[in-house]
Amino acid sequence: MFTVIVYLHVKREYLDIFIQATLDNAQNSQKEPGVIAFDMLQQQDDPTRLVLYETYRTAQAQLDHRETPHYLKWREAIADMFEEPRYAIKYNVLSPSEI
Amino acid sequence: MFTVIVYLHVKREYLDIFIQATLDNAQNSQKEPGVIAFDMLQQQDDPTRLVLYETYRTAQAQLDHRETPHYLKWREAIADMFEEPRYAIKYNVLSPSEI
Repeated sequence: MFTVIVYLHVKREYLDIFIQATLDNAQNSQKEPGVIAFDMLQQQDDPTRLVLYETYRTAQAQLDHRETPHYLKWREAIADMFEEPRYAIKYNVLSPSEI
Repeated sequence: MFTVIVYLHVKREYLDIFIQATLDNAQNSQKEPGVIAFDMLQQQDDPTRLVLYETYRTAQAQLDHRETPHYLKWREAIADMFEEPRYAIKYNVLSPSEI
Protein backbone atom coordinates (compact mmCIF):
# COMPACT_ATOMS: atom_id res chain seq x y z
CA MET A 1 0.00 0.00 0.00
CA PHE A 2 1.26 3.47 -0.85
CA THR A 3 -0.15 6.92 -1.52
CA VAL A 4 0.51 9.37 -4.32
CA ILE A 5 -0.43 13.01 -3.77
CA VAL A 6 -0.85 14.77 -7.11
CA TYR A 7 -0.81 18.57 -7.20
CA LEU A 8 -2.79 20.26 -9.96
CA HIS A 9 -2.68 24.02 -10.66
CA VAL A 10 -5.28 24.87 -13.26
CA LYS A 11 -5.79 27.94 -15.44
CA ARG A 12 -8.83 29.73 -14.10
CA GLU A 13 -10.59 29.85 -17.46
CA TYR A 14 -10.57 26.05 -17.60
CA LEU A 15 -11.49 25.42 -13.98
CA ASP A 16 -15.11 24.36 -14.42
CA ILE A 17 -14.44 21.98 -17.28
CA PHE A 18 -11.33 20.67 -15.53
CA ILE A 19 -13.33 19.87 -12.40
CA GLN A 20 -15.99 18.03 -14.39
CA ALA A 21 -13.40 15.94 -16.24
CA THR A 22 -11.49 15.18 -13.06
CA LEU A 23 -14.64 14.23 -11.15
CA ASP A 24 -15.38 11.67 -13.84
CA ASN A 25 -11.86 10.26 -13.53
CA ALA A 26 -12.00 10.21 -9.73
CA GLN A 27 -15.39 8.53 -9.51
CA ASN A 28 -14.38 5.80 -11.94
CA SER A 29 -10.99 5.35 -10.31
CA GLN A 30 -12.64 4.79 -6.93
CA LYS A 31 -14.23 1.65 -8.42
CA GLU A 32 -10.93 0.04 -9.43
CA PRO A 33 -10.16 -3.05 -7.32
CA GLY A 34 -6.58 -1.93 -6.64
CA VAL A 35 -7.59 1.55 -5.51
CA ILE A 36 -8.13 2.12 -1.79
CA ALA A 37 -8.70 5.87 -2.02
CA PHE A 38 -8.96 8.36 -4.85
CA ASP A 39 -9.99 11.61 -3.19
CA MET A 40 -10.33 14.84 -5.14
CA LEU A 41 -9.76 18.05 -3.19
CA GLN A 42 -9.93 21.78 -3.94
CA GLN A 43 -7.80 24.20 -1.95
CA GLN A 44 -9.97 26.53 0.13
CA ASP A 45 -7.89 29.69 -0.31
CA ASP A 46 -7.09 29.09 -4.01
CA PRO A 47 -9.73 27.16 -5.99
CA THR A 48 -7.38 26.79 -8.97
CA ARG A 49 -5.26 24.37 -6.91
CA LEU A 50 -6.56 20.82 -6.63
CA VAL A 51 -5.19 17.61 -5.20
CA LEU A 52 -5.69 13.97 -6.04
CA TYR A 53 -5.01 11.71 -3.08
CA GLU A 54 -4.49 8.25 -4.53
CA THR A 55 -3.88 5.19 -2.35
CA TYR A 56 -3.08 1.94 -4.14
CA ARG A 57 -2.85 -1.61 -2.84
CA THR A 58 0.19 -2.42 -5.00
CA ALA A 59 2.52 -0.88 -7.57
CA GLN A 60 0.71 -2.94 -10.20
CA ALA A 61 -2.58 -1.31 -9.21
CA GLN A 62 -1.15 2.09 -10.12
CA LEU A 63 0.09 0.76 -13.47
CA ASP A 64 -3.34 -0.74 -14.10
CA HIS A 65 -4.95 2.61 -13.28
CA ARG A 66 -2.87 4.31 -15.95
CA GLU A 67 -4.27 1.98 -18.60
CA THR A 68 -7.94 2.49 -17.77
CA PRO A 69 -10.17 4.26 -20.30
CA HIS A 70 -11.20 6.89 -17.74
CA TYR A 71 -7.59 7.80 -16.93
CA LEU A 72 -6.50 7.95 -20.56
CA LYS A 73 -9.55 10.06 -21.45
CA TRP A 74 -8.84 12.42 -18.54
CA ARG A 75 -5.15 12.76 -19.32
CA GLU A 76 -5.87 13.81 -22.87
CA ALA A 77 -8.79 16.08 -22.00
CA ILE A 78 -6.92 18.15 -19.42
CA ALA A 79 -3.46 18.24 -20.99
CA ASP A 80 -3.58 21.95 -21.91
CA MET A 81 -5.42 23.27 -18.86
CA PHE A 82 -2.53 23.61 -16.42
CA GLU A 83 -1.12 26.85 -15.07
CA GLU A 84 2.06 24.90 -14.32
CA PRO A 85 3.02 21.25 -14.78
CA ARG A 86 1.37 18.87 -12.37
CA TYR A 87 3.59 16.89 -10.06
CA ALA A 88 3.26 13.98 -7.67
CA ILE A 89 4.92 12.89 -4.43
CA LYS A 90 4.92 9.25 -3.28
CA TYR A 91 4.48 8.17 0.32
CA ASN A 92 4.54 5.04 2.38
CA VAL A 93 1.45 4.70 4.58
CA LEU A 94 2.49 4.37 8.24
CA SER A 95 -1.08 4.46 9.59
CA PRO A 96 -3.66 3.08 9.33
CA SER A 97 -1.94 -0.24 8.76
CA GLU A 98 -5.00 -1.55 6.92
CA ILE A 99 -7.62 0.55 5.20
CA MET B 1 -16.55 17.58 5.35
CA PHE B 2 -13.10 19.01 4.65
CA THR B 3 -9.50 17.83 4.61
CA VAL B 4 -6.39 19.31 6.15
CA ILE B 5 -3.02 18.20 4.80
CA VAL B 6 -0.31 18.84 7.38
CA TYR B 7 3.33 18.87 6.26
CA LEU B 8 5.95 17.83 8.80
CA HIS B 9 9.69 18.12 8.22
CA VAL B 10 11.53 16.47 11.09
CA LYS B 11 15.14 16.63 12.23
CA ARG B 12 16.70 13.29 11.39
CA GLU B 13 18.00 12.69 14.91
CA TYR B 14 14.42 12.80 16.21
CA LEU B 15 12.81 10.80 13.43
CA ASP B 16 12.26 7.49 15.24
CA ILE B 17 10.81 9.07 18.37
CA PHE B 18 8.77 11.48 16.26
CA ILE B 19 7.24 8.61 14.30
CA GLN B 20 6.32 6.73 17.48
CA ALA B 21 4.67 9.79 19.01
CA THR B 22 2.82 10.61 15.81
CA LEU B 23 1.62 7.03 15.34
CA ASP B 24 0.07 7.20 18.79
CA ASN B 25 -1.68 10.45 17.89
CA ALA B 26 -2.87 9.13 14.52
CA GLN B 27 -4.21 5.85 15.89
CA ASN B 28 -6.17 7.61 18.63
CA SER B 29 -7.39 10.33 16.27
CA GLN B 30 -8.79 7.69 13.90
CA LYS B 31 -11.18 6.69 16.71
CA GLU B 32 -12.69 10.16 17.13
CA PRO B 33 -16.32 10.26 15.97
CA GLY B 34 -15.80 13.43 13.92
CA VAL B 35 -12.73 12.09 12.12
CA ILE B 36 -13.26 10.40 8.75
CA ALA B 37 -9.59 9.89 7.96
CA PHE B 38 -6.35 10.50 9.80
CA ASP B 39 -3.68 8.96 7.58
CA MET B 40 0.00 9.22 8.45
CA LEU B 41 2.42 9.12 5.50
CA GLN B 42 6.20 9.14 5.06
CA GLN B 43 7.72 10.52 1.88
CA GLN B 44 9.49 7.78 -0.08
CA ASP B 45 12.44 9.86 -1.29
CA ASP B 46 12.91 11.80 1.97
CA PRO B 47 11.90 9.92 5.15
CA THR B 48 12.23 13.10 7.25
CA ARG B 49 9.14 14.49 5.51
CA LEU B 50 5.81 13.21 6.76
CA VAL B 51 2.21 14.09 6.07
CA LEU B 52 -0.96 13.91 8.13
CA TYR B 53 -4.07 13.66 5.97
CA GLU B 54 -6.96 14.64 8.20
CA THR B 55 -10.58 14.58 7.00
CA TYR B 56 -13.19 15.93 9.42
CA ARG B 57 -16.97 15.78 9.28
CA THR B 58 -17.35 19.35 10.57
CA ALA B 59 -15.33 22.35 11.69
CA GLN B 60 -16.34 21.48 15.24
CA ALA B 61 -14.79 18.03 14.84
CA GLN B 62 -11.41 19.65 14.16
CA LEU B 63 -11.78 21.88 17.22
CA ASP B 64 -12.71 18.84 19.29
CA HIS B 65 -9.62 17.02 17.98
CA ARG B 66 -7.40 19.83 19.22
CA GLU B 67 -8.69 19.35 22.76
CA THR B 68 -8.11 15.61 22.97
CA PRO B 69 -5.48 14.25 25.36
CA HIS B 70 -3.67 12.44 22.54
CA TYR B 71 -3.38 15.62 20.42
CA LEU B 72 -2.22 17.77 23.33
CA LYS B 73 0.32 15.14 24.38
CA TRP B 74 1.61 14.88 20.80
CA ARG B 75 1.84 18.63 20.29
CA GLU B 76 3.97 19.04 23.37
CA ALA B 77 6.13 15.97 22.77
CA ILE B 78 7.14 16.92 19.22
CA ALA B 79 7.41 20.70 19.56
CA ASP B 80 11.20 20.83 19.27
CA MET B 81 11.70 18.11 16.66
CA PHE B 82 11.03 20.08 13.50
CA GLU B 83 13.56 20.95 10.83
CA GLU B 84 11.22 23.76 9.80
CA PRO B 85 7.81 24.87 11.06
CA ARG B 86 4.97 22.56 10.15
CA TYR B 87 2.19 23.96 8.01
CA ALA B 88 -1.26 22.92 6.89
CA ILE B 89 -3.41 23.50 3.81
CA LYS B 90 -7.21 23.18 3.92
CA TYR B 91 -9.27 21.64 1.15
CA ASN B 92 -12.89 21.07 0.26
CA VAL B 93 -13.59 17.45 -0.68
CA LEU B 94 -15.10 17.30 -4.18
CA SER B 95 -15.10 13.49 -4.36
CA PRO B 96 -16.09 11.13 -2.91
CA SER B 97 -19.25 12.97 -1.86
CA GLU B 98 -19.67 10.68 1.12
CA ILE B 99 -16.95 8.68 2.80
